[in-house]
Amino acid sequence: MKVRARGIQIGTLSTGENNCITDVANVRVGHVTLDEPLENGEYAATGVTAILPHSGNPFREKVAAASYVINGFGKTTGLIQLDELGVLESPIMLTNTFGVPAVTEGALRWLLDQTPEIGDTTGTVNIVTGECNDSRLNSIRELSVTADHAGQAIKKASAHPSEEGAVGAGKGMVCFGYKGGIGTSSRVIHTKQSNESFTIGCLVLSNFGKREEFESSRYIKGASDTQPNAPKPADGSIMIVLATDAPLDHRQLKRVAKRAGIGLARTGSHYSNGSGDIVIAFSTAHKFPHEKSASLECVHLLRDSDPALNELFQATAEVTEEAILNSLSQAVETTGRKGLTVYPAPFS
Amino acid sequence: MKVRARGIQIGTLSTGENNCITDVANVRVGHVTLDEPLENGEYAATGVTAILPHSGNPFREKVAAASYVINGFGKTTGLIQLDELGVLESPIMLTNTFGVPAVTEGALRWLLDQTPEIGDTTGTVNIVTGECNDSRLNSIRELSVTADHAGQAIKKASAHPSEEGAVGAGKGMVCFGYKGGIGTSSRVIHTKQSNESFTIGCLVLSNFGKREEFESSRYIKGASDTQPNAPKPADGSIMIVLATDAPLDHRQLKRVAKRAGIGLARTGSHYSNGSGDIVIAFSTAHKFPHEKSASLECVHLLRDSDPALNELFQATAEVTEEAILNSLSQAVETTGRKGLTVYPAPFS
Amino acid sequence: MKVRARGIQIGTLSTGENNCITDVANVRVGHVTLDEPLENGEYAATGVTAILPHSGNPFREKVAAASYVINGFGKTTGLIQLDELGVLESPIMLTNTFGVPAVTEGALRWLLDQTPEIGDTTGTVNIVTGECNDSRLNSIRELSVTADHAGQAIKKASAHPSEEGAVGAGKGMVCFGYKGGIGTSSRVIHTKQSNESFTIGCLVLSNFGKREEFESSRYIKGASDTQPNAPKPADGSIMIVLATDAPLDHRQLKRVAKRAGIGLARTGSHYSNGSGDIVIAFSTAHKFPHEKSASLECVHLLRDSDPALNELFQATAEVTEEAILNSLSQAVETTGRKGLTVYPAPFS
Amino acid sequence: MKVRARGIQIGTLSTGENNCITDVANVRVGHVTLDEPLENGEYAATGVTAILPHSGNPFREKVAAASYVINGFGKTTGLIQLDELGVLESPIMLTNTFGVPAVTEGALRWLLDQTPEIGDTTGTVNIVTGECNDSRLNSIRELSVTADHAGQAIKKASAHPSEEGAVGAGKGMVCFGYKGGIGTSSRVIHTKQSNESFTIGCLVLSNFGKREEFESSRYIKGASDTQPNAPKPADGSIMIVLATDAPLDHRQLKRVAKRAGIGLARTGSHYSNGSGDIVIAFSTAHKFPHEKSASLECVHLLRDSDPALNELFQATAEVTEEAILNSLSQAVETTGRKGLTVYPAPFS
Repeated sequence: MKVRARGIQIGTLSTGENNCITDVANVRVGHVTLDEPLENGEYAATGVTAILPHSGNPFREKVAAASYVINGFGKTTGLIQLDELGVLESPIMLTNTFGVPAVTEGALRWLLDQTPEIGDTTGTVNIVTGECNDSRLNSIRELSVTADHAGQAIKKASAHPSEEGAVGAGKGMVCFGYKGGIGTSSRVIHTKQSNESFTIGCLVLSNFGKREEFESSRYIKGASDTQPNAPKPADGSIMIVLATDAPLDHRQLKRVAKRAGIGLARTGSHYSNGSGDIVIAFSTAHKFPHEKSASLECVHLLRDSDPALNELFQATAEVTEEAILNSLSQAVETTGRKGLTVYPAPFS
Repeated sequence: MKVRARGIQIGTLSTGENNCITDVANVRVGHVTLDEPLENGEYAATGVTAILPHSGNPFREKVAAASYVINGFGKTTGLIQLDELGVLESPIMLTNTFGVPAVTEGALRWLLDQTPEIGDTTGTVNIVTGECNDSRLNSIRELSVTADHAGQAIKKASAHPSEEGAVGAGKGMVCFGYKGGIGTSSRVIHTKQSNESFTIGCLVLSNFGKREEFESSRYIKGASDTQPNAPKPADGSIMIVLATDAPLDHRQLKRVAKRAGIGLARTGSHYSNGSGDIVIAFSTAHKFPHEKSASLECVHLLRDSDPALNELFQATAEVTEEAILNSLSQAVETTGRKGLTVYPAPFS
Repeated sequence: MKVRARGIQIGTLSTGENNCITDVANVRVGHVTLDEPLENGEYAATGVTAILPHSGNPFREKVAAASYVINGFGKTTGLIQLDELGVLESPIMLTNTFGVPAVTEGALRWLLDQTPEIGDTTGTVNIVTGECNDSRLNSIRELSVTADHAGQAIKKASAHPSEEGAVGAGKGMVCFGYKGGIGTSSRVIHTKQSNESFTIGCLVLSNFGKREEFESSRYIKGASDTQPNAPKPADGSIMIVLATDAPLDHRQLKRVAKRAGIGLARTGSHYSNGSGDIVIAFSTAHKFPHEKSASLECVHLLRDSDPALNELFQATAEVTEEAILNSLSQAVETTGRKGLTVYPAPFS
Repeated sequence: MKVRARGIQIGTLSTGENNCITDVANVRVGHVTLDEPLENGEYAATGVTAILPHSGNPFREKVAAASYVINGFGKTTGLIQLDELGVLESPIMLTNTFGVPAVTEGALRWLLDQTPEIGDTTGTVNIVTGECNDSRLNSIRELSVTADHAGQAIKKASAHPSEEGAVGAGKGMVCFGYKGGIGTSSRVIHTKQSNESFTIGCLVLSNFGKREEFESSRYIKGASDTQPNAPKPADGSIMIVLATDAPLDHRQLKRVAKRAGIGLARTGSHYSNGSGDIVIAFSTAHKFPHEKSASLECVHLLRDSDPALNELFQATAEVTEEAILNSLSQAVETTGRKGLTVYPAPFS
């Protein structure tokens, strides 16, 4: 159940149709989940999540993008080029920390299959893969995630509302000592002057926080926490992906990405030392073709001084906070490595 | 009255002796306040605040420092060199936006007087001056603040608990549509392993936020807001100064500075487009002499993996939030330019 | 004499009409030079240089801009906001290190005069002022530069080719132990596909380098240096201003700005520790109005993959190197503080 | 043959014993080279290079490190955490662009084997892998490099002088249209005051530049280029690894890393749009243990104002330029994919 269904409302702005990142037109999400004992007594409780900016080839039709590192204890790949050129040209892949190489290779292989000119008659392609450390529930040293899993997640991606909780890359994640994982939310804002509306959606992979940091009193009225002790904190992390159809460029998307930290802060996080808290934001408003005969690109951009930009900032704070709460609210009791069970947060 | 005296407690860590930035040993604060009608019918409701890292000459004995720009719609000077060399070598000055040149010159003149070798036999000096736009209450176009005011603020600086509210640079500031200005707070944290304790203090100049953004329900129980309408929002801003005696270097201080955004977020801010939200953090643990015969400096630093660093992150979030609340709680009804009156927040 | 007139050719691209930053249409440059003994036996050998992006009000019609800090031992103001919003809204002012407050205030007063809405019915304005330390020839502690000098430099600004050498802010500057100061150069590049041409111009304030670092063998054939010893090195610096009519946004202008370091490196600089080596780049291709009813802005931008961007990178390296050489080649023997004379470089 | 053996001297500082990055005590380098036709008619001309900061476990004993992105059209992994925490905890791996996932996984597997606590009782590990695009000579779409190759390169690492040219990751690289690849160089500098000496070494993977950009007249006297046409330019890149025993922290290493761009600029590069020009610098002066009971770390650091830092800046420029030239000078004629042959630069 999403937290809205529990009567918890975050902020004041309206959600999109499904309160999901896929409310941004053409954005697609796919998950592959691993949940099985391994032969050597270890356990695979992990997976892959893929987010595609549109239904076409992301290399041939790039979208504006930016990243922001809230705290950099993380191994996300692909951000150097994303920030130099200001565009995203691959799916955004999420997985466990040690799955990054396999998942990156899987996304690369999918793109090479789709795009025979890459590495032959044109340049290379930049894959973006984010991660959190699911080693409490998942035997991360076993490297269970393969390149094939990445390809499957991409192929399964659809524009339907994403599953949430212990699914895909979220399978083994722990947040505030409760079961976390995938969560998503969206908002719709309006420009006052031109009567346009824009949607912004967020998908998080939540894996951060000590139980005592959780601002539970903001979300859970009168609840007493009767659940078993939280698992020993490990290096946490949260991956935050923001998608919008508002026409923003790299600089503006970086400004938006920075506001994800507001939502994260409100849940109780202190961006802890061992946490890789990383935001990736993209705008689907304009597609930048890889090849083009013209030297110039004509781009429409929201003016920074338009009140809609401040609303987007507010919306970013709201969707991030709500996506984190949804990742908790939708998660189910999960047992993994060494028989450890992690329980859902005690929402009423 | 500080918010603690009103029964509002922020976070879980203990405050320093006076819940003030001057709880960090040797840190000193001074204010000069302007509050007077001008001959041309305009009104000066503004001032200068000076924060000194210690009682010596800050150029000859520098301290480690870093800055972090939460949102860069601001005119703070001196951060380029502060971040290149990782040290602070001047008082940190705060004033109104158009007072920056005069105040920078005033601090420069004070340092030249103290330090005849500057610009003669040694290099120049880097002055750090932050600002917010107090143009709702202050006739900012009149440039009422002078270099002399800056020198006076420095000379008045003392290690006693700082005044708060509508004082010094805070005289004309407006926060969430209420009277804001200067606020301060502190926390004490402990290393688990070596039984040491460190203090971190915060002083803010608050001038941001729309009234409807204020998370008043977190701070004000059952209060109805019967006060007159908030003044029309202008470009806001908040300057956040963090002082600590924890032994941190530039990189670590930048990490700490980033966490000030957590406290700011929790009050309701969305780091709005027109806001200059800027953090400056320094550590008094080690003094770096300007001249030294030895090539090497021996520095003790807190290990990033020590739990005390996470506590400092939490403390930063707490002191920033509480300093903002103190700036509101301590502020008094203030009438300025064009007869506009701004009222205190309706704390119970 | 420019170095081209001496037979020295830098790079392979064509210069603009006057090999000057004012070859970029509507860019204007003005200088005020101080050269006089002071009553107390000190000497003023300093000045102010103003660069205007166009002939209109720079606040009401902003231009895209970015900065890049090669080495941050410098006191330039205004870069935080310039990089947050990606626009320049003031003249770019250059002066000596301790003249920054006065010159910033002078530019502010000029803008307040031109623009009564600033600080009254609209927000504040962000002034950009760069500096180098001219304390070998100029009695910098005397703070001889005033706000009025800044206003005069702005008013004197014209689209004619700029003077070079020991003029304006360049009056007291020393480069590689020779007389430096103001230098300028330009290049014209062409897009292959759409047959358009763009101009990029550079103006430097040169004040860096030890004599033994100068790559004189690249520029001066067979010359023996028979000139007196170089003055004792002080903290150096170079300010590099790049103007172009190529349609580039903030991200692209930052990429261009970074290439100024190539030209600087080729002259022999190692970006020394005590040097404030700072680049500011702007594009006149699009004017962003301060007020606008529409929410969106339609902007034409050069595609990053267009070969013209690489040509602009090359042109940036060339104009920076040549502007530095022109600052040396055009400088004349100058006597200042304490009777010190600095001589021109021994170009043949 | 190194360029010094050809009579080409870069700069004025003295080289280390072998003019190699391994002149920095305990630094080790290993290469695995692939050079073979593939069954499908494609060709593998590629490889892996590993650089280890010392002979111990790099995770358990970390070294201070920083990165600097000259131009970010590249896919290097691991820099986010390296810059957040300021330490390197893995070998630095180099390979072709599409080999990054396999090589990262190979280095990860090696570290997991060495360090059973990773991902079990302690956190994860951050692998640093850099790359260039060797697709002119290597059938890069074939993904010929495997995780095993990475492990082999690490195991082969030794403190002997590194091979150069078409070896390891350098096998298929092209620089200025000539055969490039691995090059290395070193310098020794001295502190004036304490009579200590420090070594700085550089290893590059060179794969950038158009032939007409090469500053051949600086290096090749009177040579006419009679070689066949250069291969069609592809997206270039250069990876630059700097190692030093000078006691520098993250901030200072970033300053040093930035100076690598000076050496690159002097060879003729304009940091072209499609080039991933990335610098990684580390200092072996202090080992930071992963686990430690004490909260504080005592670190000796070179003072920024010590003349030795400027010498390190100069040395960085020199070693980078010379390492690039060595990569050209040591490279041999190489035939790869589609029968293309790339020839050495015409050094005399």
